[in-house]
Amino acid sequence: MDLVLKNIGLLATPVGKTAKKGGEQKQILLAENAFVSVENGKIVYAGQGQPPDAAQVIDCQGRLVTPGLVDAHTHLIFGGWRQKEMARKLAGESYLDILKSGGGILETVRQTRAASEDALYEKGAALLKEMLAHGTTTVECKSGYGLNLPDELKQLRVAKRLAESQAVDLVPTFMGAHAIPAEYKENRAAFIELLCGEIMPAVKAENLAEFCDIFCETAVFTPAESLGILAAAAKHGMVPKAHADEIDPIGGAEMAAAAGCISAEHLIMASDTGIRALAEKNVAACLLPATSFCLDKNYARARDMISAGVAVAVCTDFNPGSSPNLNLQLPMYLSCLKYRLTPAEALTAVTLNAAAAINRSGMVGSIEPGKQADLVVWDAPDLEYIFYRYGSNLVRSVVKKGKLVV
Amino acid sequence: MDLVLKNIGLLATPVGKTAKKGGEQKQILLAENAFVSVENGKIVYAGQGQPPDAAQVIDCQGRLVTPGLVDAHTHLIFGGWRQKEMARKLAGESYLDILKSGGGILETVRQTRAASEDALYEKGAALLKEMLAHGTTTVECKSGYGLNLPDELKQLRVAKRLAESQAVDLVPTFMGAHAIPAEYKENRAAFIELLCGEIMPAVKAENLAEFCDIFCETAVFTPAESLGILAAAAKHGMVPKAHADEIDPIGGAEMAAAAGCISAEHLIMASDTGIRALAEKNVAACLLPATSFCLDKNYARARDMISAGVAVAVCTDFNPGSSPNLNLQLPMYLSCLKYRLTPAEALTAVTLNAAAAINRSGMVGSIEPGKQADLVVWDAPDLEYIFYRYGSNLVRSVVKKGKLVV
Repeated sequence: MDLVLKNIGLLATPVGKTAKKGGEQKQILLAENAFVSVENGKIVYAGQGQPPDAAQVIDCQGRLVTPGLVDAHTHLIFGGWRQKEMARKLAGESYLDILKSGGGILETVRQTRAASEDALYEKGAALLKEMLAHGTTTVECKSGYGLNLPDELKQLRVAKRLAESQAVDLVPTFMGAHAIPAEYKENRAAFIELLCGEIMPAVKAENLAEFCDIFCETAVFTPAESLGILAAAAKHGMVPKAHADEIDPIGGAEMAAAAGCISAEHLIMASDTGIRALAEKNVAACLLPATSFCLDKNYARARDMISAGVAVAVCTDFNPGSSPNLNLQLPMYLSCLKYRLTPAEALTAVTLNAAAAINRSGMVGSIEPGKQADLVVWDAPDLEYIFYRYGSNLVRSVVKKGKLVV
Repeated sequence: MDLVLKNIGLLATPVGKTAKKGGEQKQILLAENAFVSVENGKIVYAGQGQPPDAAQVIDCQGRLVTPGLVDAHTHLIFGGWRQKEMARKLAGESYLDILKSGGGILETVRQTRAASEDALYEKGAALLKEMLAHGTTTVECKSGYGLNLPDELKQLRVAKRLAESQAVDLVPTFMGAHAIPAEYKENRAAFIELLCGEIMPAVKAENLAEFCDIFCETAVFTPAESLGILAAAAKHGMVPKAHADEIDPIGGAEMAAAAGCISAEHLIMASDTGIRALAEKNVAACLLPATSFCLDKNYARARDMISAGVAVAVCTDFNPGSSPNLNLQLPMYLSCLKYRLTPAEALTAVTLNAAAAINRSGMVGSIEPGKQADLVVWDAPDLEYIFYRYGSNLVRSVVKKGKLVV
């Protein structure tokens, strides 16, 4: 063997190659006094017994081991930060005043357009290392701060360079339909034409994105526009996703189901009909509790979704405005505290179900023979502890593709 | 000079040797391109100009520097953890069911009584190192999980050993009046007699506590009982503090003011009269937003307290039940998000005002000549950033009494 992790106090993992829905979400494997053996970056065995010899041995000294965490919804690549804006909000300025003075997402668009590809690459690489140190081994990453041909391509090229150079697996999503840029404010149709007629073919030509996401929301894209854009994306070989029913219940979940989305995001205001549609069409729900926390909003009805048979994933939504936290351990905690997921359900939400939401559940998201050896050793004696002692980074070590990287 | 911190992008600190109240709380010193010089563990100069030669030079490379953080309310020393209880709550069990089965604070009392002094010392030392790595250089620490003579003394002796051996300054508080132990459930008067007649003299004999805190609350100690216990504590040379109006508005803040407390804690339900009394009697408010967060409770009316002229401090309340987070950066974030403090007010709350709440404002809590050289270098370009990019530990380096310890 190349690597053995021995003296695992508790091995905790969902099992399987597809998302876990309803009652399945809480059915995880718990093995005490276990070991994991790894060869050629893949798991050979995980469970109890006598560990074989190996070139490298990690003694876990009774600690908890889980799959590497999968963050299936981030806006990783952007220019600047927006801390001044938060301070202005705390001092009493309204969101609208800040927007009028050019703030909000348009500020990040301006800073991302102004940033060089190399600067974005360096920043993204540093952030990915920080995520890895917090246990995240696979990261989805959306464009959408360019909103024009050169700058959307720039963001996605940065993602490609990061995917090729960094330890974390990076999964790219084209999200040109993230906002209507200022220059198209009076001409939405022309912007949609630019997205579908020019940018998508260019993204496809360089094979820069696996998914296409869209912000279906009041004052952004209507359900009808969203369906059209996602259909165009599918023609260009991108699997659809949708930000749906985050702020207003405009039938975003229903649209996501009708569009054949692999996942729908946010879903704070999703209707019962929308939730049923997600379940029927096997659309995973990527829930983002840290965004609700940060914006003081309602929390998505995760328990209702699980009851309805939707596969629930939990992600950071890392971005410089509504969720400047990249540590998935905090959304994990929030998913217990606010969604009332049990630790077992929450573990599945940030591993196998998150992997399924980005079409990686055959490869990562559980500790099983044949899967990539992405593992986290926690400074924790049991599974409950990592959903309880929040605020400190509880990750002790991280193994990525069979290599000790943290 | 022994030590110089140079190339400080922004030095941010309150100024003075007493707590800042009302409008003063936001008046902090902000100096760009600054340096700090240190000799014999104390600050010699802080501000702009040409740094002198020094035996050790830390190049801050444009980063933010603040005073070391002061955590003025913790229950640092305890046996065990209570993650299983949180999991039970999430699975639907009521607090009452858990209490009936021997859980809650009584579980921690049991585990603390069962733990050896050495075991508690080792655990406390590890936790203090973790706090220091998150920027906390001074920690108040309450007893109150012993609730009998030998085990209260055991907790306080552990605090003394930690104070003597660890880099962090530890400030001990006797809190035998933390709960009515099971064995005195039917005889409160006898427990109060034990506290005042036996345990306090023993604490005084070994000089183990500087403060005496008490849980003034429905079903714990009444305001009248609290006044009596705190008067006894004062006779034994301990400065009074009080957990007041956390759950029910029973006049706890008024009691704290009448008892001459240096600080009152929690104050979620404090009345307008109570808040005015705190202001009049110069009682600092130690607010604990992470406890509100963790228990899904209301948040204390910090803005009303500032308006009334109360000095507001913000602390972790670190303990194994209602606040298992020891990273003061999260309460700092919550104090902006939920209390609507500005970054400047929040900085004062976790430095100078927290120091004042434990009678240390002449020594720590600000970066000024003559004060102890307790400093944090942050991976942050400005003050707003550390109240915005929450979830990662943003501390780059920590200087304690002039020594680089992180």
